[in-house]
Amino acid sequence: MPSLEAYDKKLDYSYCLGAYPCSLLLAHRPEAAFRLLLSDAAQGEGVEALREKCAFLGIREEIAPRVLKRESGKQNCFAALAFRKYQSALDPSLPHAVFCQISDGGNLGTALRSAAGFGYKDIAVIRTCVDVFDPHTLRASMGAFFLERVHVYERFEDYADEFGDRCLFPFMLDGAKDMDEVAKSAPKVHSLIFGNEATGLDSSFASKGQSVKIRQSGQIDSLNLSVAASIAMYTFSGRAK
Amino acid sequence: MPSLEAYDKKLDYSYCLGAYPCSLLLAHRPEAAFRLLLSDAAQGEGVEALREKCAFLGIREEIAPRVLKRESGKQNCFAALAFRKYQSALDPSLPHAVFCQISDGGNLGTALRSAAGFGYKDIAVIRTCVDVFDPHTLRASMGAFFLERVHVYERFEDYADEFGDRCLFPFMLDGAKDMDEVAKSAPKVHSLIFGNEATGLDSSFASKGQSVKIRQSGQIDSLNLSVAASIAMYTFSGRAK
Repeated sequence: MPSLEAYDKKLDYSYCLGAYPCSLLLAHRPEAAFRLLLSDAAQGEGVEALREKCAFLGIREEIAPRVLKRESGKQNCFAALAFRKYQSALDPSLPHAVFCQISDGGNLGTALRSAAGFGYKDIAVIRTCVDVFDPHTLRASMGAFFLERVHVYERFEDYADEFGDRCLFPFMLDGAKDMDEVAKSAPKVHSLIFGNEATGLDSSFASKGQSVKIRQSGQIDSLNLSVAASIAMYTFSGRAK
Repeated sequence: MPSLEAYDKKLDYSYCLGAYPCSLLLAHRPEAAFRLLLSDAAQGEGVEALREKCAFLGIREEIAPRVLKRESGKQNCFAALAFRKYQSALDPSLPHAVFCQISDGGNLGTALRSAAGFGYKDIAVIRTCVDVFDPHTLRASMGAFFLERVHVYERFEDYADEFGDRCLFPFMLDGAKDMDEVAKSAPKVHSLIFGNEATGLDSSFASKGQSVKIRQSGQIDSLNLSVAASIAMYTFSGRAK
């Protein structure tokens, strides 16, 4: 078996860390996984279920505590899967969440976790942004990444060329309408668009759809990105027809 | 001037990192601040405003790049304030957010940031939990901590002794009612209660008030703690009378 390299975005594979995220990878993207990595202390129901499923799928297992420690940065990561990166096409009949120039993997991962919870399984990620396959982004998503179709675009215009004729809702601090009002009359097929943590969406987005803002007291500059996206997806998923 | 020690929860002071959080500390808790720390590269409007305000308040400034690097773990932290820890009493006439046994400072800080945005300025924190004065918790709050009255209780019962006669809404994965429904008829004076990231609130909370759940698809185990708390505060702040 060739040895596994330290994660780098240029590699064509990545690492899914933790028993629960691994179970989601095997359930939803089994063809991508190619090696099960276990610590020498790995035990328990979750680990045994992974071993069984991997044996069934013909995925080799290996005791690799140093790889686990290197990739997780922690002593208590007991299981991981090495898997090949893949691309997904977005479903044109479903709502999308669009993340532009997100710089923090924890934020993007947390937003992906919420997205799966609120029925947004089609995710566009616009560059320049954090590496979606970075093990820490995947870890913050708690494996929700594997439930979703995530597509990375070089520019927002490339996304708009494909999906620009649906209802677009850019979220902006000075958005023209209140989110709660807009969500009530939003069609099921729509896209919620979020910008960079520090700079948000640039002002050109105000004319790219119906800009919306999330009501808040004005005592804070802005909400955390994953919080704003989660509130938006929760609200639209409960109201859009 | 005595030298400033590496942060430890046993110290009676802490560090507020970053120009924007420092400006909130000076605006809302000026009496707590006692030293302004600057890097040798500190410049710009935000830094000058801090220096001016500190001069006016009689707070000494010091060039202390090593302290900044040590406390932030980063090279690009240009300004910080050392400040004395303080306690606040909660306002009985206002809604509260109650955080039980939160283990991650980033989660608690992000929740505090949202709390200030949604009008929850009275925050109970129940031990065992992350140190609320840890510089990284304060940093994740973006300084919102200084807008709020945060009180730490040893046990939930101590909080309930003081405030148990108001409407309590424990958030639980198996909560008895849907949040949107409950929020519509919630009184203005209420408390939203959230549990630990991994274990949530224990089952005894089901009888400590009206337990509520946040609607989600069931495809994920749970929401991130700061996301769940933010969705709850957003929803209740818009509906409670």
